[in-house]
Amino acid sequence: METEAIIQFFQDLQDAICGGLEKLEPEARFQEDLWQRPGGGGGRTRVISGAVLAKGGVNFSDVHGTLNEASASSLGTVPGDFRASGVSIVLHPQNPWVPIIHMNVRFFELGEGREWWFGGGIDLTPHFILPEDAAFFHQHLKKVCDQFDPAYYPEFKNWADDYFYLPHRQETRGIGGIFFDRLQASDRHDRNDRFEFVKAVGEAFVPIYTELVLRNRDRAYGEAELAWQRIRRGRYVEFNLVWDRGTKFGLQTNGRTESILMSLPPQANWAYDYQPEPDTEAHRTQEWLKKGVDWHSR
Amino acid sequence: METEAIIQFFQDLQDAICGGLEKLEPEARFQEDLWQRPGGGGGRTRVISGAVLAKGGVNFSDVHGTLNEASASSLGTVPGDFRASGVSIVLHPQNPWVPIIHMNVRFFELGEGREWWFGGGIDLTPHFILPEDAAFFHQHLKKVCDQFDPAYYPEFKNWADDYFYLPHRQETRGIGGIFFDRLQASDRHDRNDRFEFVKAVGEAFVPIYTELVLRNRDRAYGEAELAWQRIRRGRYVEFNLVWDRGTKFGLQTNGRTESILMSLPPQANWAYDYQPEPDTEAHRTQEWLKKGVDWHSR
Repeated sequence: METEAIIQFFQDLQDAICGGLEKLEPEARFQEDLWQRPGGGGGRTRVISGAVLAKGGVNFSDVHGTLNEASASSLGTVPGDFRASGVSIVLHPQNPWVPIIHMNVRFFELGEGREWWFGGGIDLTPHFILPEDAAFFHQHLKKVCDQFDPAYYPEFKNWADDYFYLPHRQETRGIGGIFFDRLQASDRHDRNDRFEFVKAVGEAFVPIYTELVLRNRDRAYGEAELAWQRIRRGRYVEFNLVWDRGTKFGLQTNGRTESILMSLPPQANWAYDYQPEPDTEAHRTQEWLKKGVDWHSR
Repeated sequence: METEAIIQFFQDLQDAICGGLEKLEPEARFQEDLWQRPGGGGGRTRVISGAVLAKGGVNFSDVHGTLNEASASSLGTVPGDFRASGVSIVLHPQNPWVPIIHMNVRFFELGEGREWWFGGGIDLTPHFILPEDAAFFHQHLKKVCDQFDPAYYPEFKNWADDYFYLPHRQETRGIGGIFFDRLQASDRHDRNDRFEFVKAVGEAFVPIYTELVLRNRDRAYGEAELAWQRIRRGRYVEFNLVWDRGTKFGLQTNGRTESILMSLPPQANWAYDYQPEPDTEAHRTQEWLKKGVDWHSR
């Protein structure tokens, strides 16, 4: 698959996802910002703020330039011309019963094809973990993975558990999902097959999130649920600013700040040593924020 | 000056500062958490939430242990037994016209006196920069510094400008103040003289913040001022989680999370590409968030 076709797919995927999400909103529509990167390339940042999605961003970018020694070494490769393209999404819903979702699919190429890889994943951060929703989410991801390789889901599920983890809180960000990086050609998968898998992940996003929104958007909530939502959003901020490698890399290498920090919630709260009351949904959620939970067979 | 006497001073300073701040609050009082560090030592974390201070923390700690290769190298020294003690403060006021303030004074010793240094500083983050308050703040700090060395203020003021800077926003966190680290014995200053300076910095905290609170706590504000306050608090979160070396070091070396993140505001908001309206106080503040402003002679 030609690089241009991959990038065209990402661009079309952004359109399809924005269209799909707008169907969930009675009125709100995405606003677009086109931007250019001084070093080469640019992107389309699209943001929405509506009745269902308090703050959502769907970003497409296609950048190119020269990788210096430091950046190359942090990517485990050697300096040279690079091209990087992908779609990144974070959605913060209004209703605390609707989960926060994150997706990223990306392609990276060095020296006009000398080296290339795909990366990405989808993960879910419910403010309140509902086991039946968690099972639906993981089953859907497993089905996508299993079409390509039975080893994908177990490997990428563990990778997400390890990646979306806050060591300083000793908790996971949410219920994980799948995370993968550096998918190159292998004995079992050529470039085309890797691309087909990444396409399937990207195309799973709208059906998955639509289902989770429809299940929960009309559930009643009050001040207690909102307070907990804001605490969980605070943890989301902590993960993204302290531990997320993509965010750190972007901020430290002069990336486009507004597109990188699009992932932050509209509001987050912090309280000293906040502990949810025993025997509440919040408390049960807290207990479930662990690695290694077998969500898909619950 | 004996190490024990320095640590006793820090402990007494925490008491004095908490007492001074409680005088500003009609009813609220500090709550204390005593904690022990598994590796050795511990601390007293004190937090308050009241009519004037929405969320404030005054932390004393005195920890000791063995510095491993990695930590020693990140401190530019060699492995060995260490002792570290100090007082750290961050106050987030309710009224957006009252500034956020941060202070830290600390002492670090390696190998029972083989090597030692003081560090610390005071800096101010007004949600709205008021030049007359900024002048008062810097003049007070300059006076404290000038008692010990005319070179202190210019050097430590620049150091604060450089340290409290958000490269990804190309703005300073606030109006700076003074910041210093690794004050060791020199031709002009022995250990006792360094300690007297750090004492004077610590003792300046209550008079400075009391004055700034009294000047501004009764100023009227509405939704527009609160909205801007929450955006500025978001930048405070960004600085602390992305750039602050103390926070990063603490979180990555298994420090006490609740005491480290005591610095975060009660609430912070993010909006995509937020721009203050032209010709407002918020806009003027944004323009002033630059290094090298000569605040003390304004």
